[in-house]
Amino acid sequence: MPAMHRFIAAFVAAGVLAISTAGQTPSRPNIVIILADDMGYGDIGAFGSPNIRTPRLDRMAAEGQKWTNFYVQPVCSPSRAALLTGRLPLRSGMYGVAGGTAPKVIRNNAAQGLPDSEITIAELLKTHGYATAIVGKWHLGSLKPFLPMAQGFDYWFGLPYSHDMDMTAPRENGFKSAAYYNPKPEYWNVPLMRNGDVVEQPADHRTLTKRYTEEAVRFINDHKSGPFFLYLAHNLPHIPLARSPEFVGHSAAGIYGDVIEELDASTGRVLDALKSAGIERNTLVVFTSDNGPWLPFGSHGGSAGPLRSGKGTTWEGGVRTPAIFWWPGTIKPAVVTDIASSMDLFVTAGKLAGAAFSGDRVIDGVDLRAPIMGTGPSPRHILYYYWDDELRAIRKGAYKAHFITSGAYDDGEARIAQTQPLLFNLADDPGERHNIAAQHPEIVADLQREADEHRRSMVAGPPLFDSLLPPR
Amino acid sequence: MPAMHRFIAAFVAAGVLAISTAGQTPSRPNIVIILADDMGYGDIGAFGSPNIRTPRLDRMAAEGQKWTNFYVQPVCSPSRAALLTGRLPLRSGMYGVAGGTAPKVIRNNAAQGLPDSEITIAELLKTHGYATAIVGKWHLGSLKPFLPMAQGFDYWFGLPYSHDMDMTAPRENGFKSAAYYNPKPEYWNVPLMRNGDVVEQPADHRTLTKRYTEEAVRFINDHKSGPFFLYLAHNLPHIPLARSPEFVGHSAAGIYGDVIEELDASTGRVLDALKSAGIERNTLVVFTSDNGPWLPFGSHGGSAGPLRSGKGTTWEGGVRTPAIFWWPGTIKPAVVTDIASSMDLFVTAGKLAGAAFSGDRVIDGVDLRAPIMGTGPSPRHILYYYWDDELRAIRKGAYKAHFITSGAYDDGEARIAQTQPLLFNLADDPGERHNIAAQHPEIVADLQREADEHRRSMVAGPPLFDSLLPPR
Repeated sequence: MPAMHRFIAAFVAAGVLAISTAGQTPSRPNIVIILADDMGYGDIGAFGSPNIRTPRLDRMAAEGQKWTNFYVQPVCSPSRAALLTGRLPLRSGMYGVAGGTAPKVIRNNAAQGLPDSEITIAELLKTHGYATAIVGKWHLGSLKPFLPMAQGFDYWFGLPYSHDMDMTAPRENGFKSAAYYNPKPEYWNVPLMRNGDVVEQPADHRTLTKRYTEEAVRFINDHKSGPFFLYLAHNLPHIPLARSPEFVGHSAAGIYGDVIEELDASTGRVLDALKSAGIERNTLVVFTSDNGPWLPFGSHGGSAGPLRSGKGTTWEGGVRTPAIFWWPGTIKPAVVTDIASSMDLFVTAGKLAGAAFSGDRVIDGVDLRAPIMGTGPSPRHILYYYWDDELRAIRKGAYKAHFITSGAYDDGEARIAQTQPLLFNLADDPGERHNIAAQHPEIVADLQREADEHRRSMVAGPPLFDSLLPPR
Repeated sequence: MPAMHRFIAAFVAAGVLAISTAGQTPSRPNIVIILADDMGYGDIGAFGSPNIRTPRLDRMAAEGQKWTNFYVQPVCSPSRAALLTGRLPLRSGMYGVAGGTAPKVIRNNAAQGLPDSEITIAELLKTHGYATAIVGKWHLGSLKPFLPMAQGFDYWFGLPYSHDMDMTAPRENGFKSAAYYNPKPEYWNVPLMRNGDVVEQPADHRTLTKRYTEEAVRFINDHKSGPFFLYLAHNLPHIPLARSPEFVGHSAAGIYGDVIEELDASTGRVLDALKSAGIERNTLVVFTSDNGPWLPFGSHGGSAGPLRSGKGTTWEGGVRTPAIFWWPGTIKPAVVTDIASSMDLFVTAGKLAGAAFSGDRVIDGVDLRAPIMGTGPSPRHILYYYWDDELRAIRKGAYKAHFITSGAYDDGEARIAQTQPLLFNLADDPGERHNIAAQHPEIVADLQREADEHRRSMVAGPPLFDSLLPPR
């Protein structure tokens, strides 16, 4: 639908809403985004896990919207940049120059971070009177000028990056290094921060989920009068796996199950806190993951369920994550198969807060209020799949074309620049099993055209991930 | 049940509950088994399908028990024999001698069928006053002495075997034959039967699901006073895919999605009929599939979700199926990860009907009343995975050992008699990705011992699938 028609449709819908009782958009709701780290599409009961028990997330999905075509970026830092800014990481410089077997992330010795010129959800909502907090992992800059306090957050409790960084134990065996499978906090010299200060180093990763949960609940209780934005960015289930003593042996599915089940209980506690505070009907909660499962870690990695491959790839398993939207009284229980991206949360949160967008920058996110309210479909029809600075694939409607395919992290799948793009119909083949390019050359050509147009119009920021501090 | 009796029953139940803790077994409940054909573990929303919409099955799962470790046999006829008799197909002769690339089934020109000496659920329940009906596919014998009326069913409406049998169209290209993808009823000379009589030939496969549903609802309405046993054995989503006109284009997931969504609606109609009749609190409904998805049919086959391989193999994708138990007032909503087999339904149905088992034969099923009532775990700890007469794998608790692995139906995976068995921990690796035999030789040895003991004690019936009628 052309933009104008869509606008008129929205206007008509708004007119209808004005005289009806249902579907009123509450003004300036609280926004809570809960982000798991490396949780796969198939790691939640409601998304098909046969072995991990997630009763709270399952109930959240049953009470809210279960989104089955929700997308993120294939690896940590770019994914967080996209979520918080509503923009493709290439625009903000939150990428490295393609090379090697895995996309790049911000290192603990990074000299750069998310540029000050970028606007995060926290900054956007702060200008509309929101209290803002990040509890958990940042991973968009390791130096002070790039930490959360510089990007609109009033409060931060968490780690500046992944808890497997600044490793001091031997990493003699890559993904099979013993340290990962019997981890001790002292194997990684990672600081735990409160606002600008280090409060613990090395951080005890075993109690991160528990402490993050307590901090999140405290923040909610301290800001009942709202509005607030809470970004609860867990470090788990990223390796090294760790959980608090109460969850050791909690799951029949092994340590990975323990970790997910602690995250499930944590999410339940957050929802309970909102209910206890009596503000659940004025709070949108979104649960998702930053990227797919880290498969080379075997039973210490998650599952992409029916999807192909995992973290670090532009196969669906790398970038499609379980996503649940919950907002009692506003969101009606539904399974939503519309396409959405974590970038859309920037726009959606802003619109819910009453923000106007100045038009001074390209925003890749779209407004999801219509599908959230049940008044219309998702306006997102196109997705661009990046790995570092390479546009590797594109999805338009049901169809996805791969121009470059690759595995990641030495998983044995070589990088191939496809001479003929691969084409999959994700509507009937979400597992990307059946290449139908030969049967649909006109669709391949259309997707190729969309990709070319996108590449032509893209103005990339300078790549910032490769800028490192001099050795100490 | 008349309203007055229901009132009394409710009163009595309330009284009983007041003096007991819980878990009283209602007496002689109706039993409904709904069996899909070739539906994969991942084809239902509640079991993780990202693209097929199954709101009624999802709700059934949310109201009842979602079983995530429920097992069947890897292919049609053995699976139906096991379900109906509670015995491994090897005992009843419902197998062929191993060979070729697929396990054997009963052919349309079969000279034999399920022996008269076998006792089916229908026969068992009939002796306890149940009215019995099969609506749908039989596939345990094509000649009159082997049809459902000879095995305890009062009523039958359906096909004697699969609707892709007795093919008259060219099958020039195996799984890629054009007839499968643009099927016409006249391509297969399959009879539709009512009791002993052919009522339509060739059967119009497009309206099978619809007509089966109507027959099932009619049977329920005609037997409200109960008790009854209804075995609703759909022919779909087995190829050739077909659905009634209302479901053409119903799904965004293509024709396979249409077919599953019609089955979803059908299941909803059956549950609604039970509710309308006021007997839902006295009826156990079990929904499952006869085996995993038939993968070589591409987008005309289903998905095993996170499980490995599909129909015709002893990988989990071949034998683990979505399973939902529903019984309002008796079954509390739960996800059940205990192990169960379709063979257990024979024993469970018998126990619920008050049957005693004479001990004149080996029964492989176990009594699932405890997990159904929520009073205890499943008593099943061991599973034997057969392909024809070969014991290919065994599961004990979380561990599964493969002695022989193979794909099926020319899927390219060769048969390998493993010199060292493969070992998987299905509790943390349901996808059978990580062979851990080298780390756990003692578990491999234990499973090997269990398999040897099972082989020693097995008394097989003569193989009956290879006995065919002389050519006409």
